Amino acid sequence: MRVLGIDPGTLTTGYGLVEEQGGILQAVAFGTINTQVALPFAQRLLRIHRELRAVLTRTRPDCAAVEAVFFAKNVQSALRLGQARGVALLALAEEGIEIHEYSALEVKQAVTSYGRAEKAQVQEMVRLLLGLPAPPSPADAADALAVAICHHNAARLKMRLRER
Amino acid sequence: MRVLGIDPGTLTTGYGLVEEQGGILQAVAFGTINTQVALPFAQRLLRIHRELRAVLTRTRPDCAAVEAVFFAKNVQSALRLGQARGVALLALAEEGIEIHEYSALEVKQAVTSYGRAEKAQVQEMVRLLLGLPAPPSPADAADALAVAICHHNAARLKMRLRER
Repeated sequence: MRVLGIDPGTLTTGYGLVEEQGGILQAVAFGTINTQVALPFAQRLLRIHRELRAVLTRTRPDCAAVEAVFFAKNVQSALRLGQARGVALLALAEEGIEIHEYSALEVKQAVTSYGRAEKAQVQEMVRLLLGLPAPPSPADAADALAVAICHHNAARLKMRLRER
Repeated sequence: MRVLGIDPGTLTTGYGLVEEQGGILQAVAFGTINTQVALPFAQRLLRIHRELRAVLTRTRPDCAAVEAVFFAKNVQSALRLGQARGVALLALAEEGIEIHEYSALEVKQAVTSYGRAEKAQVQEMVRLLLGLPAPPSPADAADALAVAICHHNAARLKMRLRER
């Protein structure tokens, strides 16, 4: 199963494809989509959407995992995040890719067994779990890989429960 | 000048095309795009985006006007609205349509000369300004027509100032 984790944002959208090969999770691809603040806002959304469509064509995921958002600094940042998240979800829906959502707590617990982990801890645990030579950078790519790992774990658990 | 006003929302997205013909503003087309709550959220975004693209093909606007959002009930509603707004702005950007933003106060003042107007007053004033037989319904279509009227007024004022 190829799971694409996505961490949407208006400035930086992280993505990471995680696949289980021989019982071991591997990072097949990861990176970020960056937009320039100077661009008109709708042009930035256009870029996020286009680049993410290109990532989907390149990585051919079986499904996607995205962090559910419950908190935001304020209404303005929730609105901005919502706009980036909207075009990301749209790109997935256009390709008929199933979307799974996990809370930040679930994602952190999946990679660090600890809900209150720091960003650096998440990056380091993602590195260890995926056998990478260095922590995936930037942090947004690590966050995307983390939510993909979270879905792998959840899917594995579901399968085991079904086998009983 | 053909101005398409848009009032995005996850449940209902209003739209309305206003054109000046012989010095008189006219509603060329208006309506709403509705999505079913039962649909997965990404499917609802897909529908808003597709239908809005169809509206753009049908109405061929020269530019678009959207209300800027400054307030929301809470973070969750700002996030939901942001997602709908994101795919609406994307549809416009994909067609290379210029987007103009106005605050709710500017829109209300443009149609009622009064910033604190009620929804019903806005609907009635939109009816009068566009010479419609009845107030445009539902309210989301009236709101979309109102923001289009607001842009017509702002553009006219700008032109007059330039002529001086």
